[in-house]
Amino acid sequence: MTLEITPSRLESLFRPRSVALVGAADKSIFSQLAYRNLDDFGFADRTYLVNRRGAVTHGRSTVTSCGQIGDPVDVAFMMVPQAATLDALSDAAAAGIRNAVILSSGYGETGQEGRAAEVELVAHARSLDMLLLGPNHLGFANFTARTPVTSIPGLPSEAGSVALLSQSGGSSSAMLDFAGVAGVGLSLMVTLGNEAMITAAHVLDYLVDDPDTRAVAMFLESVREPDVFRHAARRALCAGKAVVVLKAGSSALSARTAAAHTGALVGNDRVIDAVFRDLGVIRVDSIEDMLLTAGAGAYLGRLARPGVGVVSISGGACDILADRAQDFDMSLPELAPETTRALTEIMPAFGTVQNPLDVTGAAINNPAMFTGAITAMSADPSIGVVAVVNSLPWEYDGRPYATQAFVDAIGDGVVTARGPVVHVNQVQQPITKYTRQVMDAGRVPYVLPGLRQAVTALSNVAWWSGLTGHRAPDAVGPVVTVAAERRRGAWTEIEARALLAEAGIPMVPGYLATSEDDAAKLAAEFGGPVALKIVSPDILHKSDIGGVRLGVVGDQAARQAYADVAASALKVPGAIVDGVLVTPMRSGGVELLVGVVQDPQWGPMLAVAVGGIFVEVLGDSVLAPLPVSTARATEMLRGMRASALLDGVRGGRPADVDEVASVITRIGDLAVALGGELESLEVNPLWVNGGTIEALDAVVTWSPK
Amino acid sequence: MTLEITPSRLESLFRPRSVALVGAADKSIFSQLAYRNLDDFGFADRTYLVNRRGAVTHGRSTVTSCGQIGDPVDVAFMMVPQAATLDALSDAAAAGIRNAVILSSGYGETGQEGRAAEVELVAHARSLDMLLLGPNHLGFANFTARTPVTSIPGLPSEAGSVALLSQSGGSSSAMLDFAGVAGVGLSLMVTLGNEAMITAAHVLDYLVDDPDTRAVAMFLESVREPDVFRHAARRALCAGKAVVVLKAGSSALSARTAAAHTGALVGNDRVIDAVFRDLGVIRVDSIEDMLLTAGAGAYLGRLARPGVGVVSISGGACDILADRAQDFDMSLPELAPETTRALTEIMPAFGTVQNPLDVTGAAINNPAMFTGAITAMSADPSIGVVAVVNSLPWEYDGRPYATQAFVDAIGDGVVTARGPVVHVNQVQQPITKYTRQVMDAGRVPYVLPGLRQAVTALSNVAWWSGLTGHRAPDAVGPVVTVAAERRRGAWTEIEARALLAEAGIPMVPGYLATSEDDAAKLAAEFGGPVALKIVSPDILHKSDIGGVRLGVVGDQAARQAYADVAASALKVPGAIVDGVLVTPMRSGGVELLVGVVQDPQWGPMLAVAVGGIFVEVLGDSVLAPLPVSTARATEMLRGMRASALLDGVRGGRPADVDEVASVITRIGDLAVALGGELESLEVNPLWVNGGTIEALDAVVTWSPK
Repeated sequence: MTLEITPSRLESLFRPRSVALVGAADKSIFSQLAYRNLDDFGFADRTYLVNRRGAVTHGRSTVTSCGQIGDPVDVAFMMVPQAATLDALSDAAAAGIRNAVILSSGYGETGQEGRAAEVELVAHARSLDMLLLGPNHLGFANFTARTPVTSIPGLPSEAGSVALLSQSGGSSSAMLDFAGVAGVGLSLMVTLGNEAMITAAHVLDYLVDDPDTRAVAMFLESVREPDVFRHAARRALCAGKAVVVLKAGSSALSARTAAAHTGALVGNDRVIDAVFRDLGVIRVDSIEDMLLTAGAGAYLGRLARPGVGVVSISGGACDILADRAQDFDMSLPELAPETTRALTEIMPAFGTVQNPLDVTGAAINNPAMFTGAITAMSADPSIGVVAVVNSLPWEYDGRPYATQAFVDAIGDGVVTARGPVVHVNQVQQPITKYTRQVMDAGRVPYVLPGLRQAVTALSNVAWWSGLTGHRAPDAVGPVVTVAAERRRGAWTEIEARALLAEAGIPMVPGYLATSEDDAAKLAAEFGGPVALKIVSPDILHKSDIGGVRLGVVGDQAARQAYADVAASALKVPGAIVDGVLVTPMRSGGVELLVGVVQDPQWGPMLAVAVGGIFVEVLGDSVLAPLPVSTARATEMLRGMRASALLDGVRGGRPADVDEVASVITRIGDLAVALGGELESLEVNPLWVNGGTIEALDAVVTWSPK
Repeated sequence: MTLEITPSRLESLFRPRSVALVGAADKSIFSQLAYRNLDDFGFADRTYLVNRRGAVTHGRSTVTSCGQIGDPVDVAFMMVPQAATLDALSDAAAAGIRNAVILSSGYGETGQEGRAAEVELVAHARSLDMLLLGPNHLGFANFTARTPVTSIPGLPSEAGSVALLSQSGGSSSAMLDFAGVAGVGLSLMVTLGNEAMITAAHVLDYLVDDPDTRAVAMFLESVREPDVFRHAARRALCAGKAVVVLKAGSSALSARTAAAHTGALVGNDRVIDAVFRDLGVIRVDSIEDMLLTAGAGAYLGRLARPGVGVVSISGGACDILADRAQDFDMSLPELAPETTRALTEIMPAFGTVQNPLDVTGAAINNPAMFTGAITAMSADPSIGVVAVVNSLPWEYDGRPYATQAFVDAIGDGVVTARGPVVHVNQVQQPITKYTRQVMDAGRVPYVLPGLRQAVTALSNVAWWSGLTGHRAPDAVGPVVTVAAERRRGAWTEIEARALLAEAGIPMVPGYLATSEDDAAKLAAEFGGPVALKIVSPDILHKSDIGGVRLGVVGDQAARQAYADVAASALKVPGAIVDGVLVTPMRSGGVELLVGVVQDPQWGPMLAVAVGGIFVEVLGDSVLAPLPVSTARATEMLRGMRASALLDGVRGGRPADVDEVASVITRIGDLAVALGGELESLEVNPLWVNGGTIEALDAVVTWSPK
């Protein structure tokens, strides 16, 4: 029997018509909280309590088995001890319940024995055709459908359009609190626990089709089903739903911590960065930014243009915003002449018309300046969203709000603007009922709290808006195949060179010499200094045994070098020697490193770096999952800190970056075509001198069978 | 008559016994707000209203001139129109008032005419021996003394120990709001306006001696009196008062914006960074971090050790905190064996004893685990402060706070701990009256809201705590003087070499050749390849005219090179030629650039960079104001992104970093000794090969008289 975790199957879990609380007990704080939530949300009449002894619990009569409920039940919320959970599952299944939410701990998070219990749990659920959320978590709450199947206290009473998923139960309550503080409304909140069966990726996939969800915020310590995640994230991008992830594990210490408390594998952080970028997943570094960016993404949707137009009455706020815009790469476009004209009519003579725009103190006597400025800014051909910096109150002080006129004028601007407008608070403040009253009175629909946080959210949404979710296929090079029996070990440079050449990658000329005469003849043909390298499938570290000579000039030197290099093979007894590879040396230009390795989670990853001393001293490399388009390869080249080298320094010729990107793409395509058995493919260096591009050395290795 | 802005003089301004509101008017919103503040703070009986027509204003009788007040008045708060301000000043001075707070605008911020009016205003105030705050601002409020001389609405009702200074009036209200939201109590708030007379630096100097202020938060667009600022900041560091500055102007755009709205010169941002670092001034990038760091600095004072010990019930929070600790360079030390032993006794078997410490869900049934963990952590020899991550409520929901037991247990830990403890909220939340009740009930004195913000504040305080404010004097090299008549123009390399050698800086050997024979003889003596350079006070760009030859080998080549280089001088008609400098070429090792330039605000600045391609491609340089100690020079070397080059790459010898730092310090000391007439002093390259250090070229230029 196969159990598939499909979106339609998850629907009955996340929108249950009725819930059985299995293990309900007055003494259990978890049971108390769960029942209180169901009661607070008006779900008590569709809640059934199952208690071991049938005792009155939470003031309600109970049954001792799900079978006694009689009515159909969609979800069993299990809070029985770990040892009793298998039987409880059977009992629920026998009553026709097909979804279980397992709060109980004592599974994978506790060590070897717990992991075995978790495997058993999943196998048992599968055998019963039951979906299983958890174990070791705090449940979920559907705020739109008003079904809280969770022991988290303090749930928000109003729903919104952001779904929140968290692998941490201990932080989920704080996340809900902040969503409330920041006025970010939630559609669904799911704590994931050990993800024994249902993972964050499955829930994400479900949410892409959930009409109540417009953006997804996720706190992840690890990504457990990379393929499902990748698929779901791509669908979300196409659907225009922003996915915002706070992924722990960027420090070695947190990797250790996460391992300590969930047993999760925390992936290589740079790989995660590259994969998220590729998938259009927005990565943030705080709970606050996660919720604020998701909230902004849900409210704004895709921006038509990345430019942000700023209107403020505080010059200081304009300065801070401009500084942070530079830090976070948020575009504050220069205004078009027609915008400048329109704003000049509004502004006082001593003001300055620019973006960010300080409307000056003149707006104190004339709040309508805000309306006019917003309208003019929103019509600018480079502006995708107008951010109006102002303040809102949060505590009622017994007096009418002093600057309600500003809020009203901004609200008028929201109505007349040609594009979206957000109100930005100068500082972080809670959105209280009083704040909402002031906003509603002025018809201001959305607020982002705090300048830095607003810049982070808007720059994130602007970046995401520029991704289409579709990648134009590049011209595909020749399809290269390698016979199964050759996919093993480390190839010689001669074999690797042939493979790359077949794939259309330009190689430095090179020939196999099998005699001193050969070597001398090749050196003469090449004309300048040459390199000689031993070629043997049995010799991996050629340099270490003296199997490489560089900068060899002249007939005699070539003969001597051949003799020396060939003799080096004697240090590896039994090595089969194919000959000595002779290639011309190159000088000038720039040397790149282009390598592909297999990530255990995410498959083939491409790394591009400036070679030589830069990669050694600075670790200056850029990663991307394969395949990459030439456009992406160009971004990678431009993303290197030392990318200015490509423009030519000290009289060097500027590199033909388009052609370099094209070669990099071909190397990537080749690695993809070779499949998962390829362990690594590295061109180091890829020599670039103006428009001349050559792979000077190549390594191909295959995974052990 | 000289007017000195001394701390004691500022005391009568910032702690007035009585205030005259000059230009009080019912119709003026500024007057309304100012009077309301004075009334709200119980200062109405010490407030006198001056109205042009003597009309009843704000329900009070008024006088038409300060002279009619009769009682002594310390401060005149002026809100008369710009044109009437000079007369109003005279009137106030005649009544014995010695401090004026000028709200009126229309001065430097409006252009040429306004600047002239501002100069006149200051001259007039000086002639009257009056101190002048503003103009074009919103006043100040002393919360400790309960004297609000400001038109900002919504002042906090309780005082604290952080002083807040702002060059932006428009953002000051938002800053006050956030201080309230975050529970940061203020001693004094000053808006600075145009700083025509009193600058932020003067106020900072005053605050160093203010017993009610333990830390200072400043929002600055520019630093107007660098010497006063430097002096005050040094005093603050010695006094153990943290100075936290949000300095706008890191982006080119904000520099333009600030110029637009205050006319302030926004200094070079990298210089500001270096100067702040040197002074122990903490730089932040948001209003929130400014206030939270200052609040933490005021609460914690100097930490005995930089290490932070973290205790949390959420593993997710531990992960996020560890990630951000790495980002912000906050130390989370490994625990000592005795700490580990103590914690092992407290923790459940499935928990992991480490820092950050997840006390696990076991604490739900045993909150005292928090107390024990805090106590144990605080006793660790590496821990300077314990941060307990937990949640606090902010809205009363009609039920007793669910996890008050955690708060109580944390409060017990605060009492038993051997060092300071802060409560860290998992997310940003306001500190409301209800929050304070919960905290007070549990004896939790201080809370930092939000993980990222807490890490920022604690890492800032930890960095600042490590600065002593005293710099051990280095061994001073020989005192070098240059006769006044020689301090002009650009020196020849021969002159520069002699000066540096006199100052004890190791120079590559070099001699002046005045004939082909000389050149050939020197080349032979040096043995390897040599460089030849034309020496003439009239030739600045030697290379451009062919006045440099590099890598010259052998007798004939040396003669030819001499002839060519000497002939190059003919391209500069009338140039006086001293001869041709011959020096040996150096290879291998690392080339540094060590340069000194005069910053118009901050004086001589030292720049250190890895030379050659690194500085060209990466702009990899580090700045510091002079003088620098060898310890600081070492930090600079280690602060370069490419500093690994100094450890030797590709078989190179590791540099003697101590000796390099010593040479850099000597170069800096020389520049300081040469005084303000020195325009620039540059050694490029400073060649470092293991323990061999040589200046290969030197440039000295002097400012035009």
